[in-house]
Amino acid sequence: MDIIWYMFDMIGTVAFAVSGALVGVSRKMDIFGMAVLALATAIGGGVIRDVLLGYFPPNSLRNVVYVTVVLAVTFIVFVIYSSRYHRNMMGPRSRASYLFADALGLASFTVTGASAGYTLYPELPIFIVLLGTITAVGGGILRDMLAQRVPSVLKEDVYALPSIIGGIAYYLFVIYGWSDQAVYGAFSIVLVIRLLAIKYQWSLPRVR
Amino acid sequence: MDIIWYMFDMIGTVAFAVSGALVGVSRKMDIFGMAVLALATAIGGGVIRDVLLGYFPPNSLRNVVYVTVVLAVTFIVFVIYSSRYHRNMMGPRSRASYLFADALGLASFTVTGASAGYTLYPELPIFIVLLGTITAVGGGILRDMLAQRVPSVLKEDVYALPSIIGGIAYYLFVIYGWSDQAVYGAFSIVLVIRLLAIKYQWSLPRVR
Amino acid sequence: MDIIWYMFDMIGTVAFAVSGALVGVSRKMDIFGMAVLALATAIGGGVIRDVLLGYFPPNSLRNVVYVTVVLAVTFIVFVIYSSRYHRNMMGPRSRASYLFADALGLASFTVTGASAGYTLYPELPIFIVLLGTITAVGGGILRDMLAQRVPSVLKEDVYALPSIIGGIAYYLFVIYGWSDQAVYGAFSIVLVIRLLAIKYQWSLPRVR
Repeated sequence: MDIIWYMFDMIGTVAFAVSGALVGVSRKMDIFGMAVLALATAIGGGVIRDVLLGYFPPNSLRNVVYVTVVLAVTFIVFVIYSSRYHRNMMGPRSRASYLFADALGLASFTVTGASAGYTLYPELPIFIVLLGTITAVGGGILRDMLAQRVPSVLKEDVYALPSIIGGIAYYLFVIYGWSDQAVYGAFSIVLVIRLLAIKYQWSLPRVR
Repeated sequence: MDIIWYMFDMIGTVAFAVSGALVGVSRKMDIFGMAVLALATAIGGGVIRDVLLGYFPPNSLRNVVYVTVVLAVTFIVFVIYSSRYHRNMMGPRSRASYLFADALGLASFTVTGASAGYTLYPELPIFIVLLGTITAVGGGILRDMLAQRVPSVLKEDVYALPSIIGGIAYYLFVIYGWSDQAVYGAFSIVLVIRLLAIKYQWSLPRVR
Repeated sequence: MDIIWYMFDMIGTVAFAVSGALVGVSRKMDIFGMAVLALATAIGGGVIRDVLLGYFPPNSLRNVVYVTVVLAVTFIVFVIYSSRYHRNMMGPRSRASYLFADALGLASFTVTGASAGYTLYPELPIFIVLLGTITAVGGGILRDMLAQRVPSVLKEDVYALPSIIGGIAYYLFVIYGWSDQAVYGAFSIVLVIRLLAIKYQWSLPRVR
């Protein structure tokens, strides 16, 4: 756990706070509802991660920076969307911002989850990969359950998959001695796969 | 953790059990569905609190009093609403009872959450306040998710806010040496603000 | 925790994986959505159990067998339901398969929850019974929340009740010295009561 780890944890927090606040906007919630959704999305994944690691109290609840950042993000989103330039609230550009912020959060939290798992339990590769994925999708699931939407992880065809691939990549990087590159490498892999999946609308087979 | 703490934990348990059972009535559930909703609402917040504190097994699952009280409350609500005086089940008076019980639970659990946080982690003010709020709103969120309703914390304009203010008040009371008054003071602040918010339908700004 | 315990934990995992995958089929999800639902259903209860026990990381996240089994089950369900013999996807036979798999999971996880509770906290009977029930219903609640269905535990009249009776039976068997029979006895009691409740559509009183 070092400065690089905190940097990615913060990128994920800001990105998921944006995604949560935007869902609040699209549901015409007041600024406090927006803040609750932003907090659940941005902090939920990290809290689930720390609980599964047995690390108490969870990092994002003991450090005032996380809540402050999420509230600041919510306020900025509120001001932007209250301005007259955004009458058309969830138009194509807002939708694109939402998907990009969500992808950024997914990639960052995959990395913070997998690396926290590796730090505490290096002998458990399956736990490391699963923790990366649960951390990455957990906040979004909370957001979607609170807002009564079908969770992205079920609706989007390729959503948890990039996170799983990134977690496996992280572990392989580390055991082959590329620890320094593992974080950046895994982050890039998740982000690129997820963005390509959005752009080209990749889909998986389903029961006919 | 002393007798006062248990008193407030029990007030919150009874109040949230009433609110959960009333949601069950309004959904025409059988008595067991009512009991499940009452248990989730009344015990959920405390279980989340103890998990975040790293206290296992959670207090309300190891002590038979909690479950017994919740089942007794469910049975009483069932009997009252099965009597012929309550044909009109979720009329204005039931709605008022529900909102009052919910406000009472919110105030009590803010206090038990914040004071449990202070007892174990006095050096983490942000955690103390957040734990008070999460304990207070957690059970209601579980109740509303189970019953597939938009959670109060998102729908009501001033719901989590009184709990946050109460948590901050609790912490300030304690650090300024008013430990004895902290519990009663914080409880009263949450309850009064929440009831005023209901009565005068206070609302917060939202994106136009 | 021995071979018998793992056997029942695995029966429950397979059974709940089938039930989760079948819900995915009925919602026309892709194979990955089916896998997410199967994982949440099959692994969710055990994760909640281990968190409430304070056992980290949870057993089903550290052991690669669980995830592998769930993914294999999902694939098999996918292949079967993609074949031309299953055009009529959630017809009466599928519904029966779903209910039987769910009942099997309920019975198995009641036993693994109650016995794990007894192993770590033999002095807390109420916790042992509640842990059996929470383990048994937890995965199904996650499944139904993710799929935006009213949870079985609220909708079905006699769902959590067999699990509670089974947990009490487990505890009584053990304290009266019938430890060897406790697991099989409790499992059978839950399964038989639940299947009878389905067959004869037992119902509990509700508010008129």
